[in-house]
Amino acid sequence: MVSIICLVSDFGLEDTWVGVCHAVIVRACPEARVVDLAHHIPPYDVRTGAFVAASGVFQLPDAIHMVVVDPGVGGERRCVCVVTARGTVLIGPDNGVLMPAASMSGGAARAFELPVDITTSPTFHGRDVFAPAAARLACGESPSAVWTELDVSTLAPAPFPECDKNAEYVRAEVLGIDRFGSVRINIPTARISELGLEGDAMEVSIGHNALAVPVRRTFSDVAEGDALVILDSSGWLTLSVDQGSAADRYGVVPGSRVRVRPL
Amino acid sequence: MVSIICLVSDFGLEDTWVGVCHAVIVRACPEARVVDLAHHIPPYDVRTGAFVAASGVFQLPDAIHMVVVDPGVGGERRCVCVVTARGTVLIGPDNGVLMPAASMSGGAARAFELPVDITTSPTFHGRDVFAPAAARLACGESPSAVWTELDVSTLAPAPFPECDKNAEYVRAEVLGIDRFGSVRINIPTARISELGLEGDAMEVSIGHNALAVPVRRTFSDVAEGDALVILDSSGWLTLSVDQGSAADRYGVVPGSRVRVRPL
Amino acid sequence: MVSIICLVSDFGLEDTWVGVCHAVIVRACPEARVVDLAHHIPPYDVRTGAFVAASGVFQLPDAIHMVVVDPGVGGERRCVCVVTARGTVLIGPDNGVLMPAASMSGGAARAFELPVDITTSPTFHGRDVFAPAAARLACGESPSAVWTELDVSTLAPAPFPECDKNAEYVRAEVLGIDRFGSVRINIPTARISELGLEGDAMEVSIGHNALAVPVRRTFSDVAEGDALVILDSSGWLTLSVDQGSAADRYGVVPGSRVRVRPL
Repeated sequence: MVSIICLVSDFGLEDTWVGVCHAVIVRACPEARVVDLAHHIPPYDVRTGAFVAASGVFQLPDAIHMVVVDPGVGGERRCVCVVTARGTVLIGPDNGVLMPAASMSGGAARAFELPVDITTSPTFHGRDVFAPAAARLACGESPSAVWTELDVSTLAPAPFPECDKNAEYVRAEVLGIDRFGSVRINIPTARISELGLEGDAMEVSIGHNALAVPVRRTFSDVAEGDALVILDSSGWLTLSVDQGSAADRYGVVPGSRVRVRPL
Repeated sequence: MVSIICLVSDFGLEDTWVGVCHAVIVRACPEARVVDLAHHIPPYDVRTGAFVAASGVFQLPDAIHMVVVDPGVGGERRCVCVVTARGTVLIGPDNGVLMPAASMSGGAARAFELPVDITTSPTFHGRDVFAPAAARLACGESPSAVWTELDVSTLAPAPFPECDKNAEYVRAEVLGIDRFGSVRINIPTARISELGLEGDAMEVSIGHNALAVPVRRTFSDVAEGDALVILDSSGWLTLSVDQGSAADRYGVVPGSRVRVRPL
Repeated sequence: MVSIICLVSDFGLEDTWVGVCHAVIVRACPEARVVDLAHHIPPYDVRTGAFVAASGVFQLPDAIHMVVVDPGVGGERRCVCVVTARGTVLIGPDNGVLMPAASMSGGAARAFELPVDITTSPTFHGRDVFAPAAARLACGESPSAVWTELDVSTLAPAPFPECDKNAEYVRAEVLGIDRFGSVRINIPTARISELGLEGDAMEVSIGHNALAVPVRRTFSDVAEGDALVILDSSGWLTLSVDQGSAADRYGVVPGSRVRVRPL
């Protein structure tokens, strides 16, 4: 199977950073295929980077995911490779940015520390540490053969909590707003049943609003302009409006607290 | 010849959608090469998507073009593959977004319906229907061997009319404004002669302005700041200003009505 | 070694231009790998294009760099291939945009004129002249075997001066501001020693401010919010603020004059 390396970063596309990482990987492992998942993560925003990386892992679990949102680059935080219980490989800084992605794939099973040597730029580990590491694995090396194993319990925690459930509600928060105004909530679609959220309608409470919303397959299953909940293709429970923006209508921003219960 | 799959969409680059489509294609057909033509089509803007896809087909007729601007995803509209009279292959929703591209390549000759099964996400046919279909063709399968043929007369119409000619004018409209402020008009360069628009000057009427403009090879063939008409490299009659923005100067927006006649 | 073609342009990503160049290269030389370094150079901004291209060459000297910021496309300016003293290959218009990149790799050693024939679009030499030329070299042809040699002394000059040194200061200017607010100054990191700028602190004068700033390995070597100078991974002396924007704090824009001396 072709080795795919997926990239998520806060590099943007205005600078040379993303392209240089591509070139480093191609040089080191020409048979790898590099795929850009997202590079417009806001600068230093570990939380959004972690959310987007998890969305990528949900859709492409059998790939190598390199995630670089790294405000502490060159400092104390470690460079790591995390292998999940289902075999997804994650590479990036040990600042929590990999952990929601690990959870999407069964949780962190093993972890390894990537060496940083004197020849690496202390301000661009994407190019000099993470991309070469991803390329080695894409070309068939095994993390345990080339790096030192870490205790997974020492990995930095995720930048946002998992949703939790009390007697009445699933308490969650907004992870992000997509281009179409859909609101993604940190309730993984894989956990809908376990959380008791099956059924064809939900109450979604945001701020002072308690919305009764149908759960539907797709946007056009409701009338244009109506709200609905979908089980989103990137792995999250999602509040949408057909042909409109749920985020604008309900004044939702990333981090907004949400409570959800079945109706 | 290498199979090239060109992508046009309204996915933007902030989310994982584009990269996931790349990965799906690479997995299914490693020898295909995926080229991003444009992903910043405004959300749901079938008209702009159709215009940009037609520009792509004009320049790359011997490729597979996957075009996803799809406000009705998961609903009633069909998923289709259109093969043009000159052999260009188009894949996308049957909402008209493929039709101007088909016209750029001789018109729709044959069409096929892509199956949508229960395992596909009803909100992301780009990943689950169109990308796999494009990959199959890139790896050598024939549409007629794998899909059910449709009557091309049942395809949804283009989102903008073709230009037409009366005794005095060619009546047209503005399709889009490029990054440099050039104004692309829905008069295909291939039809200049047939429409009687050869010659070295034109009157271009927009709103209350009737501009007498020279037709030139390139921007610097007029003085800096002067207006000109060029036969644009992407296949459209285009109003430009050397080193400046024709759109700003003349207050033109996509959809503006234009009349053109030779001088 | 895999042939890598790096692209820098002012094409943006809203239009089909970048993707069409990829397709042209892939068709002509399937084994080449095309890497996008930056396409968001402001329209016609030869200065910024030259700066970004030089950053790319610093990091990827053993690649073919195609740089298209070309306000004079189709006019008098020549299309050229420049080979540097260290073997980097540059392709683009002869308007100075390649010259800082050449300086990053030992200076222009040889230059060749690319032919422009009647079949090329006079408004899109990226597609019809530069991309085919880059593909030929990527597939092993030699510039001297296929093109006519030029006198390198006739190449158009760089759009910004090299820094210079008087008794007191190195006089320089700001080339660009990165996504994180770091300020890149036209003092190549390779010349720090020759310019007498080693040491662990500098005075950086911008406008009426004379800042005493430590020189550090990485951002987190100073307290959060403090300023520092780093030897940037893209090859330039750079003024940064840990977790903040140096450009915003000091009101710096591209082109601002800077004086630097060791402390």
